[in-house]
Amino acid sequence: MIQNKQEIIQLLLKYLEEQNHDKIQEFLEKYQPADIAEILKDMDAAERGKIFKLLDKGAAALVLDMLDIGTITSLLETLGPQYIAEILNEMSSDDAADLLGHFPEELRNTLLGLMQAEDAGEVQGLLEYDIESAGGIMTTEYVAIPKDITAGKAIEILRKTAPDAETIYYVYVVDSQNRLVGVISLRELIVADPDTLIEDIMHKKVISVSVDMDQEEVAEVVSKYDFLAVPVVDHDNRLVGIITVDDVIDVIYDEASEDIFRLGGSTELVDDYVGTRISRALKSRLPWLSVTMLEGIIAGQVLRGLENELRAVVALAFFIPLLTGMGGNVGTQSATVTVRGLATGDIDENNVLSVIFRELLTGVLLGIINGILVGSIAWVWQKNAVLGFIVGLAMVGNMTIAALMGALVPLTFKKVGIDPAVASAPFITASIDITGLLIYSTLARLFIGFLL
Amino acid sequence: MIQNKQEIIQLLLKYLEEQNHDKIQEFLEKYQPADIAEILKDMDAAERGKIFKLLDKGAAALVLDMLDIGTITSLLETLGPQYIAEILNEMSSDDAADLLGHFPEELRNTLLGLMQAEDAGEVQGLLEYDIESAGGIMTTEYVAIPKDITAGKAIEILRKTAPDAETIYYVYVVDSQNRLVGVISLRELIVADPDTLIEDIMHKKVISVSVDMDQEEVAEVVSKYDFLAVPVVDHDNRLVGIITVDDVIDVIYDEASEDIFRLGGSTELVDDYVGTRISRALKSRLPWLSVTMLEGIIAGQVLRGLENELRAVVALAFFIPLLTGMGGNVGTQSATVTVRGLATGDIDENNVLSVIFRELLTGVLLGIINGILVGSIAWVWQKNAVLGFIVGLAMVGNMTIAALMGALVPLTFKKVGIDPAVASAPFITASIDITGLLIYSTLARLFIGFLL
Repeated sequence: MIQNKQEIIQLLLKYLEEQNHDKIQEFLEKYQPADIAEILKDMDAAERGKIFKLLDKGAAALVLDMLDIGTITSLLETLGPQYIAEILNEMSSDDAADLLGHFPEELRNTLLGLMQAEDAGEVQGLLEYDIESAGGIMTTEYVAIPKDITAGKAIEILRKTAPDAETIYYVYVVDSQNRLVGVISLRELIVADPDTLIEDIMHKKVISVSVDMDQEEVAEVVSKYDFLAVPVVDHDNRLVGIITVDDVIDVIYDEASEDIFRLGGSTELVDDYVGTRISRALKSRLPWLSVTMLEGIIAGQVLRGLENELRAVVALAFFIPLLTGMGGNVGTQSATVTVRGLATGDIDENNVLSVIFRELLTGVLLGIINGILVGSIAWVWQKNAVLGFIVGLAMVGNMTIAALMGALVPLTFKKVGIDPAVASAPFITASIDITGLLIYSTLARLFIGFLL
Repeated sequence: MIQNKQEIIQLLLKYLEEQNHDKIQEFLEKYQPADIAEILKDMDAAERGKIFKLLDKGAAALVLDMLDIGTITSLLETLGPQYIAEILNEMSSDDAADLLGHFPEELRNTLLGLMQAEDAGEVQGLLEYDIESAGGIMTTEYVAIPKDITAGKAIEILRKTAPDAETIYYVYVVDSQNRLVGVISLRELIVADPDTLIEDIMHKKVISVSVDMDQEEVAEVVSKYDFLAVPVVDHDNRLVGIITVDDVIDVIYDEASEDIFRLGGSTELVDDYVGTRISRALKSRLPWLSVTMLEGIIAGQVLRGLENELRAVVALAFFIPLLTGMGGNVGTQSATVTVRGLATGDIDENNVLSVIFRELLTGVLLGIINGILVGSIAWVWQKNAVLGFIVGLAMVGNMTIAALMGALVPLTFKKVGIDPAVASAPFITASIDITGLLIYSTLARLFIGFLL
């Protein structure tokens, strides 16, 4: 986003050499935390530490939140845990918990020990929650007001708490037991008569999420209702935190990446592609390859059953890549559409049958179109009508099964509680290889008499 | 999200029958627009129209924005264009333009003609922009203030304009030529001394997007800086609109879906999976299948060159699915990681070489591990050491090339301006089938003497 990053870095290094610290501070004030993070990422460890230390602690907290774990670790080494703990005190509790969650336990405890007791307590509380649940992404820095004060008084409270709150654009209303009873937006407070009671202008039907809701569902709620934040409640409807839209955006990016990686047959994490070590990349890919290997061997065993026919008519072998390739293609298409439909909520229990029927019909139609085409090509190419007939018919069966499996496998996974995205391209295609070759070899054995 | 949708619908139908319109209005007031939209979707056209007409126009506008195009068309048929035009007047200009952009030109012009001149003009202006650009997703309902007023005066302006503005949480500051010179958040206005001049407290370094920026880039800007809204400027830095975070969330969902579909080898749109006609599904899938078919035939031609060897050693055919399957798997993995890295900005010009090197190394390592494994299996299974050697060595070559192609093809596409996601699983796997079989048949021909 910043055009002249290298120039900026050169300038900062020059100021550093001149020990012109005021100039550096003045210069950095003009940039957004995200930009400063980008600049720091591209510097050497020693200079990075010096520049970071020149930021005031509030700004440093915002910058730290934007940095990747590698850069943060380098700052930790250069500046020491005491300094980083001071910055963590300034961070919002959810961001601090997020960051600490990435560290090994020992380092995490050292840093928590160095933080202020109150902040450390809040962060420790958040660390208890599953990192992919509402509790794991929420912040405890929200504004809550009692219902029996006036709009004017509420704005006064906001004036005081604004610097510490993550957002003041929604104000949550609680009763004496801290139970969530209403919500009012800052926008509504601004236009309200200052003497009105909050109780009379608040919305009583508040949409909230439970502290153990999965983060993907939280993202759906926020995006469905176009919220800027959503309150998080425990099982007694007591307000325990809020989740803001910027964190939801991160969730949406991460969940989409996770689905894309799983569909592509690897479990690699999105966080830092280039930083991921090769050993980790191998580890995330090998399990999928083992599945494919096993299925490849089964497919080979199926072909072994066709040994005599293959020996008699070698041309049968020429169509193996065509059949498996096109079947895999159709299966991947169906699986992709189904997995994404499940992720966006487009497919639910009400229309699951129509989805299956639809894919079945699509498979049959694609099979007929492509079967006629491929069959004709095989006939002309190998000058053998029977071979063309076998290949064409195998294509119809193959594509029908492929489309059906592409829809059924992710749906079944969802039903039994496995992430449907695990029904990835490699998994689906390899399974379809087996069924496709079974159909092909059955047909070949049936009609071998006419081939010779 | 709403648990008892069917019960709610039954209740509404009962009230309708009793002509108890007050009760219906009172009942619906408790629900969010998104929930009312969900309820309406599941009703019959006639009753849907009656309920929709009972909503006050402001609420109806919010509900209309949440409905899919099929349901809106049904409302249009039941209630007539005049009524819908009245609701469009109440919608924010970007949502109205979005909706009208989905209609055929004639209907669009009819509706624009029936709308109030001022609203219609704004909407028409927005319809000029590319729907995937900043101009296409922005709204013109923002709050802009001059820089020489006080904070107190600014809040007063906000009080008046709040009902019409899309967001008042960011207030943009413009000069006499409507050029963007600053920004201040409502939060900052609230805590500021009412007598301070805006000029003295506003942020002068405003991050804005250009009206023709691609929506995917806009989403990156908003998510990078954790903004609730971003201003849109023309080429003279004049403020022409704003884009709010809720629209950005829609963009992120849509772009992720588009990538996922393309990776899966179909161009189907996400909007309304179940509503997409089969004919359209076929149309989006067939082009990819033709590519696969062509490549399958080429792969067949490669095998044809191995005809004599296959006749002599039929077992060579048994390993075709294993080789193509595993090669395709590695290629898909590499392509997925690369495409997603490009989409999230993780991969850029600075690290493209290290990405290629990394995938190459991964391919070689995966090839060696799997080659040894598969080769040993082939040896034991077919009791033929030479066959095991050929299959194992082919696997090494195949996986190396597969990983390299998986990274290079999307990178090349990006370079020449094609969406890298087009380097989809089917495209990559089919190409890898050909190279893999070329390697395999070359090795088989070289070593056939030892096989017999």
